[in-house]
Amino acid sequence: MTALRDQNPPEETGIVVVGSLALDTVRTPFGAAEEVLGGSAAYFALAARLFTPVTLVAVVGKDFPPGDLDRLRQAGINLDHVEVADGPSFRWGGEYGYDLNSRETLFTHLNVFERFRPRLDEKLKRARYLFLANIDPDLQRDVLGQVHDPELVVCDTMNFWITSKRESLKQTLEDVDVVILNDGEARQLAEEPNLWKAGRAILDLGPAVVVIKKGEHGAMLLSREESFTAPSYPVEMVYDPTGAGDSFAGGFMGYLVANGRHHPGAFRRAVIYGSAAASFCVERFSVEALLSVCRADLERRGRELKLISHFDLD
Amino acid sequence: MTALRDQNPPEETGIVVVGSLALDTVRTPFGAAEEVLGGSAAYFALAARLFTPVTLVAVVGKDFPPGDLDRLRQAGINLDHVEVADGPSFRWGGEYGYDLNSRETLFTHLNVFERFRPRLDEKLKRARYLFLANIDPDLQRDVLGQVHDPELVVCDTMNFWITSKRESLKQTLEDVDVVILNDGEARQLAEEPNLWKAGRAILDLGPAVVVIKKGEHGAMLLSREESFTAPSYPVEMVYDPTGAGDSFAGGFMGYLVANGRHHPGAFRRAVIYGSAAASFCVERFSVEALLSVCRADLERRGRELKLISHFDLD
Repeated sequence: MTALRDQNPPEETGIVVVGSLALDTVRTPFGAAEEVLGGSAAYFALAARLFTPVTLVAVVGKDFPPGDLDRLRQAGINLDHVEVADGPSFRWGGEYGYDLNSRETLFTHLNVFERFRPRLDEKLKRARYLFLANIDPDLQRDVLGQVHDPELVVCDTMNFWITSKRESLKQTLEDVDVVILNDGEARQLAEEPNLWKAGRAILDLGPAVVVIKKGEHGAMLLSREESFTAPSYPVEMVYDPTGAGDSFAGGFMGYLVANGRHHPGAFRRAVIYGSAAASFCVERFSVEALLSVCRADLERRGRELKLISHFDLD
Repeated sequence: MTALRDQNPPEETGIVVVGSLALDTVRTPFGAAEEVLGGSAAYFALAARLFTPVTLVAVVGKDFPPGDLDRLRQAGINLDHVEVADGPSFRWGGEYGYDLNSRETLFTHLNVFERFRPRLDEKLKRARYLFLANIDPDLQRDVLGQVHDPELVVCDTMNFWITSKRESLKQTLEDVDVVILNDGEARQLAEEPNLWKAGRAILDLGPAVVVIKKGEHGAMLLSREESFTAPSYPVEMVYDPTGAGDSFAGGFMGYLVANGRHHPGAFRRAVIYGSAAASFCVERFSVEALLSVCRADLERRGRELKLISHFDLD
């Protein structure tokens, strides 16, 4: 058995994403959706699977629509490690204003997610690629501690944890390779309004790479070696910004895992494909757009991003 | 005499900029400056003169410090058409918050600027390059009507005119080649939150090119032929954002006039040199930084902007 198991390449799990599956209720000036498939792990997985296999670790209640799980499965995502617990599923409700930058959370019912304490089995403990979605930093570290020797660990976070669990979050950041956060969170975590300085201050907390998402203004990447800034794709009509950040992370990490992160320019390309994934995400409600795109769609938007941002000085 | 005058090439005036010279009082969290050289025409001219001759059309009061005029003159700017009027000079006071994006105007004393009605002489009427700084759109059109056959007309505006003189501003826009405005103004003028759509709506008002400045988030350029987005230069420490927009316009237009706007990529490079000029402007109070830079400094920042924004997809 041991021999057999060792024959399986350890990357067979692809990226292991630990996060939430949720039923979202979203209102925007352009429409509304009720109890639709959402959650950080769903958005991440649907973007990342365009590049590489993904195994999803999450919990749902017994009321979670089987059809939603089927759609994820049919998209090629491994759901063998999604726990079905007693009690209702995680539900989130939000409303966006006319400019779609301001979001008001209407309700957050954690339900079964409140007692989510993932225990990885032997296979997952040998995962090489781990994405820690926006969950309690204590839990992020607990999961990270279970994985034997990951090659690449990426994590997300949010203002709530920066405020309520700053020290725990800092401990998590010591042990991850890449942290992805938005501009407001970067300023808040670093207590520094200048984003480049904030990014460097976060680098000093431990991660080798810091990615700062700026919504319609694009994204920045900082490491000891380089600074990079990319525009966002010029989306004509943003219908629902929910999940844009997780889709970005999925495209970003999926590209790195599939193509190797040690090639020159790999991290820059990863930002571009993250931006492309996010740009599709916001064009429809819920995960509808991500379900219908293929890798060539991302590549096309990558080329368009190059067209609108490159210049020569001669 | 006529013969002699005709021998002078019409471009000897270089760019004619019509705007304000002011005495600014500025407070930021990092310091303060009182009664320092400012005004849209000063910032524009000091950036544009790095590329091409500039003739400044403005009015000052008799109290305007001769030393400030000397500094402009020593920077190579033609002040022969600056009128000295009875009464006190234009004074503006503003205060910036900690993130330097929010500005509160403390006072605006138009003084002699209130009755500014520039009458161009025969030489200026033959100007080929005209920059209409942020003044009443009626006045912009009055000046434009005096110039016989300009090759390139660029104008700026502000929220005040968009609100109070929308129809007049629209008439001005029918007759200019390029309009430069910031993101909030573009959204307000087009009544459209999506900046790319707002830019295209403004193109429909008449200008061949629309440039939208986004402060720390860079700038966008739209024309019938192309869409371009550029990052802002990663300034370490913004001391005083006053004049950044006019410096951008000066670097932008100066480059176009000096290098020809019909070369492929010329407008993109102009945006880059505009961004570079603005990045120097904000690093010191008043026009101090612009007085001390040379064209090579802008070119160096242009190369750095390329380094942080370019990527390849292969």
